[in-house]
Amino acid sequence: MTNSPQLLGISNAIVDVLAHVDDDFLQLIGAEPGSMTLIDKAQARALYSQMGPATEMSGGSVANTVAGFANLGGTAAYIGKVKADQLGTIFNHDMRSLGVDIRLVAAEDGAPTARSHVLITGDGQRTMQTYLGACLELCLADITKTTVGAPKAILLEGYVWDIAEGPALAKKAAAIAKANGTTVALSLSDSFCVERHQDSFMEFVREDADIIVADEEEVYALLGTRTIDGTLAALRDFDNLFAITRSEHGSVIVHGNTHITQAATRVDNVVDTTGAGDAYSAGFLYGWANDQSLEVCAKYGTHCATMVIQQLGARIEPGLLDNFESV
Amino acid sequence: MTNSPQLLGISNAIVDVLAHVDDDFLQLIGAEPGSMTLIDKAQARALYSQMGPATEMSGGSVANTVAGFANLGGTAAYIGKVKADQLGTIFNHDMRSLGVDIRLVAAEDGAPTARSHVLITGDGQRTMQTYLGACLELCLADITKTTVGAPKAILLEGYVWDIAEGPALAKKAAAIAKANGTTVALSLSDSFCVERHQDSFMEFVREDADIIVADEEEVYALLGTRTIDGTLAALRDFDNLFAITRSEHGSVIVHGNTHITQAATRVDNVVDTTGAGDAYSAGFLYGWANDQSLEVCAKYGTHCATMVIQQLGARIEPGLLDNFESV
Repeated sequence: MTNSPQLLGISNAIVDVLAHVDDDFLQLIGAEPGSMTLIDKAQARALYSQMGPATEMSGGSVANTVAGFANLGGTAAYIGKVKADQLGTIFNHDMRSLGVDIRLVAAEDGAPTARSHVLITGDGQRTMQTYLGACLELCLADITKTTVGAPKAILLEGYVWDIAEGPALAKKAAAIAKANGTTVALSLSDSFCVERHQDSFMEFVREDADIIVADEEEVYALLGTRTIDGTLAALRDFDNLFAITRSEHGSVIVHGNTHITQAATRVDNVVDTTGAGDAYSAGFLYGWANDQSLEVCAKYGTHCATMVIQQLGARIEPGLLDNFESV
Repeated sequence: MTNSPQLLGISNAIVDVLAHVDDDFLQLIGAEPGSMTLIDKAQARALYSQMGPATEMSGGSVANTVAGFANLGGTAAYIGKVKADQLGTIFNHDMRSLGVDIRLVAAEDGAPTARSHVLITGDGQRTMQTYLGACLELCLADITKTTVGAPKAILLEGYVWDIAEGPALAKKAAAIAKANGTTVALSLSDSFCVERHQDSFMEFVREDADIIVADEEEVYALLGTRTIDGTLAALRDFDNLFAITRSEHGSVIVHGNTHITQAATRVDNVVDTTGAGDAYSAGFLYGWANDQSLEVCAKYGTHCATMVIQQLGARIEPGLLDNFESV
């Protein structure tokens, strides 16, 4: 594996535990539909004992993007912390089997590999209750010139800011990237996460990040805006390239005064919206890494997102863009 | 949980590791398409490292039937051996969450929980490479009046005969069952398994089993017949009730001179044939346990099998027969 892949992801390494539930179950556990809530070990144990049968598959927001990017044919590497337990073995196996270069060894000690209980309701919406476990032990010492290398881009996720040393390790990764001419991309993760870390995110966007991938709610939370028009106006003042997904309203790529609008593809059979944004990012960044126009990048992203919401699970299948006609 | 559920399953407790592969992959690992091969720990490790990303979900043939039976609304219990590792925790959780009474505690020591690498090719066919691990440690001492209790029926699977003490524990379970007036059912598992244990299976069918669930290839292997007509003729000499699935040719219920033929439901979108037979057994036995006619039992079985081949994974969803019109 080259030390200069197209994309290096730095994020929370998580195994998803997916189950179909009804709305009453969300009410029972006091979960806001569509939210991502961090839970501790005891809560995770209690939740799991109440849940129905589940399917386990590797997940994690930016990890999904990296896996998808590799599946599309890109070269990729990954930094995230798992324990050397069965779920950690599953996570690393699934990444490596796609050719993703895993940069950290699984920890022999410490908290177990993270899991996100993904509760899918009838409308395909996901509500996540995440126990971060080993992810919380990702630390500054894991981010070095050796582990980061010199990729074309690094992609961090907002959820990294939920780790004690997260903001510092993000800054360190960005500094290593800049020294190598590596592009720095940031996924905003979710609007609650943006609210938790708004000041720090804004600083990172202004000082460190080149590309921001996010859905519109996350951008609203970052900027304090309430409408897409207000957001587009506010973004004139930013140097970053923003790729903003808007569910059924498609997506918009914003770079200062330039806006590129891409319509969504109509889908009659939404199975599970898990990973729609992650898949969009995979397609978008794959286009970007291969020097496609922003229009084509947006089409790639849309195609990947459209595919992933018609299946259970967040990771896109290989070769999705092999015969894709972008016009 | 009552000590007298409708169904108690005794089988190999396995977590499935499902992945899509192409035909070349099967050739590479020397696997016969559609077969189930037992592999050891080293082979399992080597295979997994060659495999693509996978999805993990609880499996095991009779375990799927028991889970399906519970999902249909039946009361069920289960005897199978897992280790107290993450996959064992997953297996027991998924069973318990359906209300299945798990009769053995997970082992603290010994081999890891079993896993079956389910390699799914484009035509929806499954090829399984199974590492039995903890299953092989199921032993005579696990089968007692307490663990078996007094269910309406017990259901054993042929794969149990691959365990060192398997044939003996099957006989012991049958003896406990008979003493309680419990019906003894046997799933023949697969035709290779029948060939491995043909004499012992025939003895069990003649002396112990009341109901046999099997596909036609398994019955051919048991009887040494080659056609369905020859099989039906040979079965006139048996006291058992046979429920025989025949893929697109539907199924036939045979009791001595009585034959009930049920057509298959046409399916245009076969996703994964994993568990079609297990689902049929769940529906059939659910009808039987609820004193339905054999015609209705066959319709239930067909409906469950039809549903399960249109999804990835072997276990049927809850409430499948809630609005089922059997005529």
